[in-house]
Amino acid sequence: MVVSLFDSRLYGPLFGEEELVVLFSERQDIDRMIAVERALARVQGRLGVIPAEAARDIDEALAYDHPIPAAIAEGTAAAGVPVPSLVTALRAKVPNGHGQWLHWGATSQDIVDTAQMIALRQAEARVSDRVGDLVEVMRRHAGTHARLPMAARTRGQIATPITFGVRVAQWAAPLIEALADRPAAAFRVQFGGASGANTAVAPHGPAIATALAAELELADGPPWHSNRRPFATIADWHLGIATALAKMAEDLILMLRPEVGEVRASKGGGSSTMPHKANPVEAEAIVTLSEIAHTLRAGLGRPHREERDGAAWALEWVFIPQMIVATGAALRHAQHLMETLEPVPERMQATLRDHPGVMAEAASFALARHMDRTEAQTLVKAALADDRPLAEALASRAPVPLDWAEILSPDQVIPACVDLIDQIFAGPT
Amino acid sequence: MVVSLFDSRLYGPLFGEEELVVLFSERQDIDRMIAVERALARVQGRLGVIPAEAARDIDEALAYDHPIPAAIAEGTAAAGVPVPSLVTALRAKVPNGHGQWLHWGATSQDIVDTAQMIALRQAEARVSDRVGDLVEVMRRHAGTHARLPMAARTRGQIATPITFGVRVAQWAAPLIEALADRPAAAFRVQFGGASGANTAVAPHGPAIATALAAELELADGPPWHSNRRPFATIADWHLGIATALAKMAEDLILMLRPEVGEVRASKGGGSSTMPHKANPVEAEAIVTLSEIAHTLRAGLGRPHREERDGAAWALEWVFIPQMIVATGAALRHAQHLMETLEPVPERMQATLRDHPGVMAEAASFALARHMDRTEAQTLVKAALADDRPLAEALASRAPVPLDWAEILSPDQVIPACVDLIDQIFAGPT
Amino acid sequence: MVVSLFDSRLYGPLFGEEELVVLFSERQDIDRMIAVERALARVQGRLGVIPAEAARDIDEALAYDHPIPAAIAEGTAAAGVPVPSLVTALRAKVPNGHGQWLHWGATSQDIVDTAQMIALRQAEARVSDRVGDLVEVMRRHAGTHARLPMAARTRGQIATPITFGVRVAQWAAPLIEALADRPAAAFRVQFGGASGANTAVAPHGPAIATALAAELELADGPPWHSNRRPFATIADWHLGIATALAKMAEDLILMLRPEVGEVRASKGGGSSTMPHKANPVEAEAIVTLSEIAHTLRAGLGRPHREERDGAAWALEWVFIPQMIVATGAALRHAQHLMETLEPVPERMQATLRDHPGVMAEAASFALARHMDRTEAQTLVKAALADDRPLAEALASRAPVPLDWAEILSPDQVIPACVDLIDQIFAGPT
Amino acid sequence: MVVSLFDSRLYGPLFGEEELVVLFSERQDIDRMIAVERALARVQGRLGVIPAEAARDIDEALAYDHPIPAAIAEGTAAAGVPVPSLVTALRAKVPNGHGQWLHWGATSQDIVDTAQMIALRQAEARVSDRVGDLVEVMRRHAGTHARLPMAARTRGQIATPITFGVRVAQWAAPLIEALADRPAAAFRVQFGGASGANTAVAPHGPAIATALAAELELADGPPWHSNRRPFATIADWHLGIATALAKMAEDLILMLRPEVGEVRASKGGGSSTMPHKANPVEAEAIVTLSEIAHTLRAGLGRPHREERDGAAWALEWVFIPQMIVATGAALRHAQHLMETLEPVPERMQATLRDHPGVMAEAASFALARHMDRTEAQTLVKAALADDRPLAEALASRAPVPLDWAEILSPDQVIPACVDLIDQIFAGPT
Repeated sequence: MVVSLFDSRLYGPLFGEEELVVLFSERQDIDRMIAVERALARVQGRLGVIPAEAARDIDEALAYDHPIPAAIAEGTAAAGVPVPSLVTALRAKVPNGHGQWLHWGATSQDIVDTAQMIALRQAEARVSDRVGDLVEVMRRHAGTHARLPMAARTRGQIATPITFGVRVAQWAAPLIEALADRPAAAFRVQFGGASGANTAVAPHGPAIATALAAELELADGPPWHSNRRPFATIADWHLGIATALAKMAEDLILMLRPEVGEVRASKGGGSSTMPHKANPVEAEAIVTLSEIAHTLRAGLGRPHREERDGAAWALEWVFIPQMIVATGAALRHAQHLMETLEPVPERMQATLRDHPGVMAEAASFALARHMDRTEAQTLVKAALADDRPLAEALASRAPVPLDWAEILSPDQVIPACVDLIDQIFAGPT
Repeated sequence: MVVSLFDSRLYGPLFGEEELVVLFSERQDIDRMIAVERALARVQGRLGVIPAEAARDIDEALAYDHPIPAAIAEGTAAAGVPVPSLVTALRAKVPNGHGQWLHWGATSQDIVDTAQMIALRQAEARVSDRVGDLVEVMRRHAGTHARLPMAARTRGQIATPITFGVRVAQWAAPLIEALADRPAAAFRVQFGGASGANTAVAPHGPAIATALAAELELADGPPWHSNRRPFATIADWHLGIATALAKMAEDLILMLRPEVGEVRASKGGGSSTMPHKANPVEAEAIVTLSEIAHTLRAGLGRPHREERDGAAWALEWVFIPQMIVATGAALRHAQHLMETLEPVPERMQATLRDHPGVMAEAASFALARHMDRTEAQTLVKAALADDRPLAEALASRAPVPLDWAEILSPDQVIPACVDLIDQIFAGPT
Repeated sequence: MVVSLFDSRLYGPLFGEEELVVLFSERQDIDRMIAVERALARVQGRLGVIPAEAARDIDEALAYDHPIPAAIAEGTAAAGVPVPSLVTALRAKVPNGHGQWLHWGATSQDIVDTAQMIALRQAEARVSDRVGDLVEVMRRHAGTHARLPMAARTRGQIATPITFGVRVAQWAAPLIEALADRPAAAFRVQFGGASGANTAVAPHGPAIATALAAELELADGPPWHSNRRPFATIADWHLGIATALAKMAEDLILMLRPEVGEVRASKGGGSSTMPHKANPVEAEAIVTLSEIAHTLRAGLGRPHREERDGAAWALEWVFIPQMIVATGAALRHAQHLMETLEPVPERMQATLRDHPGVMAEAASFALARHMDRTEAQTLVKAALADDRPLAEALASRAPVPLDWAEILSPDQVIPACVDLIDQIFAGPT
Repeated sequence: MVVSLFDSRLYGPLFGEEELVVLFSERQDIDRMIAVERALARVQGRLGVIPAEAARDIDEALAYDHPIPAAIAEGTAAAGVPVPSLVTALRAKVPNGHGQWLHWGATSQDIVDTAQMIALRQAEARVSDRVGDLVEVMRRHAGTHARLPMAARTRGQIATPITFGVRVAQWAAPLIEALADRPAAAFRVQFGGASGANTAVAPHGPAIATALAAELELADGPPWHSNRRPFATIADWHLGIATALAKMAEDLILMLRPEVGEVRASKGGGSSTMPHKANPVEAEAIVTLSEIAHTLRAGLGRPHREERDGAAWALEWVFIPQMIVATGAALRHAQHLMETLEPVPERMQATLRDHPGVMAEAASFALARHMDRTEAQTLVKAALADDRPLAEALASRAPVPLDWAEILSPDQVIPACVDLIDQIFAGPT
């Protein structure tokens, strides 16, 4: 029980994800704010809003030797945001009295929001890469096991046969959709000045914003100080991935139970007292991490009052990095689980064999071509209650002779399953 | 305190929205499930999956005289879903023994999910219409008041001038984005059969789904029994609207305070004991309704385990209609508030006049063209602390003579504000 | 998908609970507000705050013939609360011009909050009764099956033996604690007048509140218009029960899986397409209902600003009745599940027999009395990997002869389990 | 935007609380787990469950020189919990082969849960101390300003007069209740062994638990591996405090607005571009921190399945420390705000003077002693619409001569307000 799990030495390997933790470190946080101030100066210098020499001095002076957080921590507590004291510290580094042109016409929120968008765009790229890798290994499993029958489960009960490839493909489906729906337009530059109308640099506000967006590879648009839809879109995208992984993990926790045992994956975790245990640690961690993302997403969405709102704003700082790191860590575990995943065909076959009801729907559809469907279902139920093997019990009751060995073979479902797998991996059209 | 507020006679006028309440009534719920069963029969008849005459009999027999809910309530409690008992009741209505071809190859979830998608598409259309109406009235206000200065507020404090049109335009911004981002692809047909692989109607599953989608004007795609991304997308879209309205309402609650008093809107609610009160009932209701939508959204996202999951599924039934009705009701109040909204220019001017600090940024930027910016800010602070009028106090301190009357006029911000309003209403590019 | 599930004819039998639905009906909602107004008049008459004859006239006139909701719905929408128009309607019914003494010194929130506290106290009594009934049937099961061994599962894996009675007792544990911790002090009268300081009836405010509390069997205390701790306490108490039931239901969903099959309970729900299915509908419903309670609880807690807050207030009206009805419905299903619950001893024994690792801890503790514990664990792991029966494999490796038949018998755990069951049902001390 | 705000150098002074951050550090986390293992050995040595010399060796060997987290981080990732690798590391430190008696009969969750309860008890003590300090300064303000009239606001509108002391007292009310309701019984020892029935140490389980509870100053009780009610109780208690502080902070944000300006508190935060701003940084931080606590609380409550559940368990590790640190940081800001709080009586008086409606209720009650109340309210409304001073307008309309100067004096409310303040600080009875 520690207050900072994600970058903890002890819990980080379980709940953190190194690249994303580094991305959301203090060092990079400050570096990004400085990068925004420098880009703003370059852009304003080019547009003639500030003197060209001032822009050059600012850009060069801030290229190295950044102030350490300790120098601006006190100012952060006083102002509720690091920018005022950071700007003061940075101005002192700029020669020729040009420091005054730093942060020209900007407000703290312009710098913080734009810096965050840089981080979020990088995080999205990293997460998308990981999702892409995961979909690839899922695609391989789905192809390899497209024809391996297993019992589907619906509402916790054994239903009808599918193939193992279908189950894997359905794990991939929301991830494939997420990759087709990356929130590129939401990574938007913020430049609005004190009250969001860029009055201090009028009429250059829109031109500065457009140039700054281009400079930082962000989307352009009007100031959105109090319109947090871009953050909501980004958060929802990550949550969609975390939710998809939780579904896979919940399925794995069930499949890894000894009573089911239809897959092997990862190396189970050991117990402090039971020598025989192999706990599904990574699958559980995914469930935990997904719940974290889900919980934190609900903490966003508080309206930003009037032109800018300090209380609602800081909530984004707290929740978004944690939810993205949690998503990234879940992806890491998912990748490892998928890379070590192996079906246990003999257990899958045993389940199908031990639960003949799994073929009840197929039998009743076969019969329904020759008799009323409701009567067919009644006949099948009676056959299931019979002591004899199901094929025999059905044959003795059916109004016409049918090839019960074929009808009752789980392999009947293979073609439809192969089609479905192909359809899923073809992606949204 | 009643368990069903939205369609209550007493609380419905405050928290409900009639058309959406009707859309999510039992009557229409059942009608939609029947419509899906009929469309399925028609499609399967055309594709030769079931006999053409059976399709015709089903379609005609179910066109009228639907069973009332009471007849299937008991079955719903037993099965956890209305479909099995509804299908039994409907089959009895189909002549020529053709009832058996009803619901051919479908599972309950196919019917329920597809029926819900019909409702959700209709709800989205209704909500989009209302959002469109609201954006129009906001556009009119923003245009009319594009040049009416008022004090922006940031972090609850008086900041710099904007115009009233800017504030209204920023209310509209997320709504305009929502209209540009309608979730059309998420209204997706569901047809997967017992375990989601359409094995009972193989190889016709994909063709049936495609035809059913066309028949019902829904998007096509593979079965998504356990992939609830479509619902999440739809819920998030509505939540985005509710959040945008809450921001507007919170601003109105502040502006309607007697100490601010910069707008009039709606007719305030009376008090049971204080004759002078005019409570901002509609704005408060929007805040409440938005919080409802926000809270209920957080209840979605539980993973659907294995091929179909009964527990996670029903959560969608509970939360989605309430969050959409709440969004619709908030829109209704927002429309009324916007239609009755009037600024109170004399109060806006009084605020600007009584808080000369509102022009401090403008003064320091004007001075910064002639002296170091930090020194300019110090000079402005000193002038603000002076007993004399600000123009006089600045003139006496400034290193160069400047036209302080012009610099300190809030009207200076008008051009930038007009540009911003235009940019916002031009919409996402 | 309907907006009001809890009192719906179709979904009510699944998600509603009749007595609580009636308690939270419009009829009783209005009746309670009238009851508070009458009690207030009686009390103020006795204290001489209003004329005794006026009190009598009010009390008698309002004893019958209450206005129907339709008459006050419009007023509710206008005022954001039913009280002002209700008071107007009620005053007209009081003879001798005494209507003016109705609602003397009260504010709408006094009436609404006090009326809600009456409902909440009744709901708590009803829920406590149901919890009591549920604990009784659990106690019987725990006693009957105190000596029936089964495999405990930890982290989804088979662990060591417990008895079935222990599992049931642990389901009861949080319910027993809830019964010992009923929130009696939270059912508190509200009487504060316009701004919560009872200035209109000074100095009689505290005396009126005390007498009104006694009259209505509520707790006394200072006005709490903006201090919603009483509601939070009540909501948390119900949520604790819902959470406990969800744990039981999740366990049942697992135990009812065909691969586990260690209990039977309720009659499973039928499928629309699979004749053999028996879905755990009631257990799933409990999970759904508990999640509803959990989700809605998170919607409470918004701070009430200044002396009284309209937006935060109404959230309580929406969420609290639904979360209590959901808790009540979950209790109803839990009661039915427990009343029909039967263990399947042969499946429990089969699990123990088929997973000899379940006795690994016992074996290693037995060995650790004669050798180093870590070496003992290594020895046990080797024996488990052996092809021979575990007793034989252990005997061949152990440094001393031990009675392996006894050590490896799951019955060894019975005495500790019996003790634990007794300890749990003895309740908190 | 950093992943670990609470202990960050940059954001920690704003969002962290030093003592609680240290309490929830890795170092203390491990120290607590070791303390539990040592206490367990001592207790088991005394009870004769393990050899007395082994207990002594364990206790002494682990008193110093604890392993650093890095040594057990890898094991934590593998096992999903630090205990197995920690136990291995600790055993190696114990002489005479006595390491094997360490962790005797315990499961990882016994150690982790008990260690957390130690932390939570310490956190509660710290938080209670801070709450006590806060109530004291509130009590002083309430006393000092018990007779300082101000306008109450209800539903965002000016209502009737109260005194400033009442507003402060109502801030204190939920804190006073929280202090009277400390969750002492929830700090409960956990000792259940592998599956929660203490079968490995039977029949000594209950005796060990009781002795361990006494040794660690925790409450006793049966194992609660899957019954997380104790954690819920503790989390709810902290949330109640955070919610109370948010109410105070929201009020302060309103009172610190320039348009209201009825208090001064803390030193406002500076702006990066507006020289005149004084942002209510600490009050905003409290709102943010309270929302954090609220959001994280909603992430708890996931049922623990079967005997022990890995996924639900780890959620507690993530959310509980953050919510407590957030509560502690909010308390720190609240204390500073209260210590620097000063009313601005002239602004309070100006509000009362400028809004004569504030006395409308008083006027109508005074008139209602001489005429029908509804007519009295109509008369008062007319007088408020009159151009003349209210006293004059009322005098000209009233049916009897009344002392309007006295009736319309806000000082009339002082006695009732003084009584209310006394009642609140007297606390729950």
